[in-house]
Amino acid sequence: MSRKILILTEGLSSPNSAKTACSVIRYRREEVVGVLDTTVMPQSCQGLFEVGGDLPVVNSVEAVPEANVLLIGIAPTGGGLPESMRMQVLAAIERGMDIESGLHDFLADDEEFVKAAQKSGSVLRDLRRNNERDVAQRQNISTECLRVHTVGHDCSVGKMITSIEITRGLEADGVDAKFIATGQTGILVEGDGCPVDAVVADFISGSVEKQILAHQHHQVLVVEGQGSITHPCYSAVTLGLLHGCLPDVLVYCYELGRTQVKGVDHIELPSMESQKDLYLAMANAAHSCRFVGVSINSRNADERTYRKEKERIESEWGLPACDVFREDAGPLVKAVKAQINN
Amino acid sequence: MSRKILILTEGLSSPNSAKTACSVIRYRREEVVGVLDTTVMPQSCQGLFEVGGDLPVVNSVEAVPEANVLLIGIAPTGGGLPESMRMQVLAAIERGMDIESGLHDFLADDEEFVKAAQKSGSVLRDLRRNNERDVAQRQNISTECLRVHTVGHDCSVGKMITSIEITRGLEADGVDAKFIATGQTGILVEGDGCPVDAVVADFISGSVEKQILAHQHHQVLVVEGQGSITHPCYSAVTLGLLHGCLPDVLVYCYELGRTQVKGVDHIELPSMESQKDLYLAMANAAHSCRFVGVSINSRNADERTYRKEKERIESEWGLPACDVFREDAGPLVKAVKAQINN
Repeated sequence: MSRKILILTEGLSSPNSAKTACSVIRYRREEVVGVLDTTVMPQSCQGLFEVGGDLPVVNSVEAVPEANVLLIGIAPTGGGLPESMRMQVLAAIERGMDIESGLHDFLADDEEFVKAAQKSGSVLRDLRRNNERDVAQRQNISTECLRVHTVGHDCSVGKMITSIEITRGLEADGVDAKFIATGQTGILVEGDGCPVDAVVADFISGSVEKQILAHQHHQVLVVEGQGSITHPCYSAVTLGLLHGCLPDVLVYCYELGRTQVKGVDHIELPSMESQKDLYLAMANAAHSCRFVGVSINSRNADERTYRKEKERIESEWGLPACDVFREDAGPLVKAVKAQINN
Repeated sequence: MSRKILILTEGLSSPNSAKTACSVIRYRREEVVGVLDTTVMPQSCQGLFEVGGDLPVVNSVEAVPEANVLLIGIAPTGGGLPESMRMQVLAAIERGMDIESGLHDFLADDEEFVKAAQKSGSVLRDLRRNNERDVAQRQNISTECLRVHTVGHDCSVGKMITSIEITRGLEADGVDAKFIATGQTGILVEGDGCPVDAVVADFISGSVEKQILAHQHHQVLVVEGQGSITHPCYSAVTLGLLHGCLPDVLVYCYELGRTQVKGVDHIELPSMESQKDLYLAMANAAHSCRFVGVSINSRNADERTYRKEKERIESEWGLPACDVFREDAGPLVKAVKAQINN
C-alpha cells in the first residue's frame, strides 16, 4: 500500500517550528495528503508553511480519510513529544494508521502508544532509534569519491536543504551524486541515512564512516551537517560528523541577520571568519580539506540586502555564494563539480 | 552488606588491557578481594597489573567465597563483552553475586543474564546506562568555582588518574575539590559522575553541564577528559566535554613515546604543539581558558629519558610538568591552586 502521509504540527504550524513538516512537504510532496493542526483554521499549506501550495491543513484525522501514516512534523530541542500532540497520535493509532516520529523520546517506549498499537495493528516507527556500535576505523576510504560536507554557523540555517539541492543539481548535470542524510528529516526525504544526533557518543564518527563506506561507489557524496562546531549544545555532533565523513570540500551555510544561537539566545554567534578557521583547523587535522562555497539563507532579508550580502561574502571568502531557494544551487553545484577528480 | 569485589579480567590481565581493573585496585583497594582470570597461574596482582600488591589473582569464583560483586574489569573498544567472559559472569550470577559492568553492551539487555539473575536474585548494574535528556543551557554557571579539565593527545594516557591525583592533592592542601568522573572507571572510583561516552549525541554537553551545576559549590572541580580532540573515533566526546564543562584551566596529558593513535595504529598522533592550539581554539570559543600544566605518562621510559623529557616540556610549554606516579602531582596541584579566585 502506498504511503499517504498526514503530518501533525499541532500548534506549531510555521516554517521555524515545523522544520520536518516543511521539508517533507517540499521534497516528498507526492506522499503527503495533508497537515493536521486543530489550533488553526482549515486552509492551504502555503500560507502557514511557505511551501506546499494547496495541500490542505485540516482539524481532524477524519478530514483526510485516505491517510495511512501520521508523521510527527516537528523536531524540538530535547526531542520530546508535546503533550498537546498525544491525543492526536492516539486517535491516529486507534484508526490503525502507522506513526512515524523523529523525536528522541521513542514512540515504541511509550506504554500507552504500544498498547493501542497492539490493538489496532499500527506500526510505530522511530526514525532516531538506532543501535550503532561501530567505532570509526579510517580505513578503506575511497579516493575516487568526492566527499562534500555542509557545515554552518548554527542549527536550522539550511544545511540539509543545501545538501539536497547540491545533490540534485549535480545529478541534473549528469554526476552520480548521493545525499547522505544525518538527521531524521533528511532520512525521511532520502529514505536512508543515519540519525547521528541520536547515536551513542562513542559511535558518532563510526556511524558516519559506515554511511561513507556503504555509498562511496557514487562519484560524489554530499553529507548533511548538523549543529555547529561552536554550538553550546551540539558541537560534539558536528565534530563527530566532520571527523567521521572526512570531507574533501566544505560548504558553509548561514542565515543572514542571525546574531544569537538559536534556542540559547543569550549566547552570541561567533564571527564567520573565526568559525571558518575552526572548521578548517579541525577538518584538516583529519583530512586535507577546503571551503568551495557559501550558502546564504536570506529568508528574512529583502532582495537588496541579499544582493549586497552576496557580493560581500563572495569578495571576502573568494568563493561563490547564493541562496539556494531565492536563486538556485547552481554556483555551489558548479564549485563542487570542479573538484571532482581533483 | 559491604561490597567485596572480585574483578574479572579473563585473558586480559595487563595494565594496558585491564585499565578498569587497575584503577579500581588502585583507588578502591579496600573493597577488592581478588581478581579472576582462569588463563594465568594463581599469583599476586602486582606482577600482572603493576598495582595491588599481594591481592590474589584466582582461577575460580570459589577461591574467593566472600566475594559478593563481580566487576567486569575491562573497557575494550566498542564495549562488547568478550565471549570468554560469559561463562564466568553466568557462574557468578548463579552464586547470587551482583554484577557490575562498564561495557556499552548492557548486562540487563542480555536475556540469558537476566533470566539467571531473576532466579538467583543478583543485581545487574550497568555503569554506562543513562537516560540523559538535557541539552546544555550555558546558564547559572558559577564564577566562584574553578573548573579544571584534563585533556590529552590520545586515549588511555592518564587523564583520569591525573584528575584524581590533582583532586586528592588539592584536598590534602586544604582545598575543597571534587573529581568529576566522566567514564565508567572514574564513576566506580568516585561513586558518582556521568558516563559521557555512552550518552546520546545531542545530550553530551548537557550531561556534563549537569554535573558542573550539581557540584559547583566546591571550590574546584576537576573534570576527567576523554579521548582527544583529534581522535578518529572519539573526538566528538572530547569536544562535547570541553564545551559542556567550560574549563577555566586545562592540564595536558600524554604518554611519552607514543606516536600512533591507540587502536587505530595506522594513524599518526598530531604534534603536541598543533593539538595544544586546537584545544585552546576550541575551548576559548566557549570560555576563556588556558593550560596550566602537563602530565607526562612515562611508564615506558627510563628515569633519564623522563628527566630529559620533563625539562624539554617545561621549557617549551613554559609550564610545570610531571609524571604523577613517578613523582607525584605536586607541581600540577600547585599550578591549579594558583588559579583559585584568579
